[in-house]
Amino acid sequence: VAIAPAVAVTAAEAAINKPLPLNIRPNGLHILADLWSTKTDLLCNTERIAQVLLRAASAANAQVLQQHMHSFGEHKGVTGVVMLAESHISIHSWPEHQLAAIDIFICGQANSNAALTVIELAFEPYRTQIHRVERGLVKTEIA
Amino acid sequence: VAIAPAVAVTAAEAAINKPLPLNIRPNGLHILADLWSTKTDLLCNTERIAQVLLRAASAANAQVLQQHMHSFGEHKGVTGVVMLAESHISIHSWPEHQLAAIDIFICGQANSNAALTVIELAFEPYRTQIHRVERGLVKTEIA
Repeated sequence: VAIAPAVAVTAAEAAINKPLPLNIRPNGLHILADLWSTKTDLLCNTERIAQVLLRAASAANAQVLQQHMHSFGEHKGVTGVVMLAESHISIHSWPEHQLAAIDIFICGQANSNAALTVIELAFEPYRTQIHRVERGLVKTEIA
Repeated sequence: VAIAPAVAVTAAEAAINKPLPLNIRPNGLHILADLWSTKTDLLCNTERIAQVLLRAASAANAQVLQQHMHSFGEHKGVTGVVMLAESHISIHSWPEHQLAAIDIFICGQANSNAALTVIELAFEPYRTQIHRVERGLVKTEIA
């Protein structure tokens, strides 16, 4: 039986995760999207998944540096990453769970939400679990 | 002036992000670690960063499939990813902000926290911002 890993933030971390001053702006928005989909053929297909992630990068107006896909075998899951000038889009799929765990981490002016829309249109998930995390809060000038 | 991206979860997403039944266990623990470090030489060095991430993967008892590093130029940041059989470890660094945004997404029995310890020992951050997210909650048998 699998044991759920501990996810509690330690006291030391909680003390460090303090609110930031108003002149701090996030360096990038990271969307963590777990999508459950009955499109298991897509979940196993490195070529089609690469196409979806590249379309997503394009929709976000992000610049692709490299793309790498790995298949765990016929009718099995895929691990893939599109490395961007603005960070990355990644996917890990488990067709046996009808699941794709997707990360869209895009910095600067590119549009992470546009990338998510492209991916959701492709996978047509029947259930989603989405988290948005501000990454690397850095100082910028105030208007 | 940079505008902070909207990070609010939509009402539809909030409705979907419901608590799960007790017989649901997470498929993987994803640690999002933003580390601020004065070790700017390390933040620019693809070879040393690759070594750190591979040591982290080893500490987590994870199996490396591929590794890819991209340098944005001398004295500039790095984008890198180590693709694992258990998902991935990635880094994006901004030496101009003394910042490394690191993801440790490891499924199964591998130990994400051991990987984080290795990375923190290498970067010796003076400030950290850490989030832990349970990814891809899937059904498993109850003991």
